Amino acid sequence: MPIPVLSIVSKKNCGKTTLLEKLIPELKGRGYRVGILKHDIHGFDIDHEGKDTYRHKAAGADTVAISCPWKVSVIKDVAEELTPQQIVEQYFEDVDIVLTEGYKRAKLPQIEVFRKAAHHQPIHTKDQPKTLIALMSDVPLDLGVPHMDINDFKALADLIEKRYLKTASE
Amino acid sequence: MPIPVLSIVSKKNCGKTTLLEKLIPELKGRGYRVGILKHDIHGFDIDHEGKDTYRHKAAGADTVAISCPWKVSVIKDVAEELTPQQIVEQYFEDVDIVLTEGYKRAKLPQIEVFRKAAHHQPIHTKDQPKTLIALMSDVPLDLGVPHMDINDFKALADLIEKRYLKTASE
Repeated sequence: MPIPVLSIVSKKNCGKTTLLEKLIPELKGRGYRVGILKHDIHGFDIDHEGKDTYRHKAAGADTVAISCPWKVSVIKDVAEELTPQQIVEQYFEDVDIVLTEGYKRAKLPQIEVFRKAAHHQPIHTKDQPKTLIALMSDVPLDLGVPHMDINDFKALADLIEKRYLKTASE
Repeated sequence: MPIPVLSIVSKKNCGKTTLLEKLIPELKGRGYRVGILKHDIHGFDIDHEGKDTYRHKAAGADTVAISCPWKVSVIKDVAEELTPQQIVEQYFEDVDIVLTEGYKRAKLPQIEVFRKAAHHQPIHTKDQPKTLIALMSDVPLDLGVPHMDINDFKALADLIEKRYLKTASE
């Protein structure tokens, strides 16, 4: 069975990470191993200046990894951007579900988070392509998919579990 | 051809990272793709508090990855410690050589770095198992293997290239 991969998408400052901070422990509590993949087209900083791994990478190493008895971490340069599918295949073989933050242009099933307090309109409209599977927002909106309150992470976990996880384990 | 994996080992504060900071660009300058694997039995911190990936991991995600057009990074919990061989197979498929910092108990070929200013004796003795391939130190010492000055990273690069890289590409 391929690992289900769902994207949490939104315009800026609608609360994707805040939602994930509640959704992750909810799914973990239901017994699932959860992977998160964040997309950042502008680049990212990771690691602490002065640490050995930071110094190795700064010295020009193509790939730097660090391993301890309970955790491993890798920082790797790539010649061209990896697709979410490539990343899932290579790094997420041991989880039950991958939730991406971002990748709104990929063709993955999407959950949009929308806050009227932050924007006038969501990304999706009612006549969009069928990648949207649910909308979480602070105002009722009909986009032709299930709508949930932006804080109702349990309802979202129910939907994800029913559609993407229960069928896999039955 | 399996990727050559060599360990840089020492007692504390002998300058493994300082040596690697010179050796990495030297090998890169000779056209090789270089991977570095650090071992830390006491655990490590990576990522910056407050960043999205940090928050995902803190919320309990088993694996967190972040991708941008030129780099990818992964932080993953493991049920039991991975061996250096497992890590090399999984994460270093696209480099020409992996240098580990640490793993002095693994059976990999080892280069010991020794500073008389920091310790009385190196880890290795002359009648040790044959994992030691070279000694870099600030004092002449005969351990039955090539000895180089602790700052002579070019001589070390020569040895590594001749023994582990040139044969692979010829």
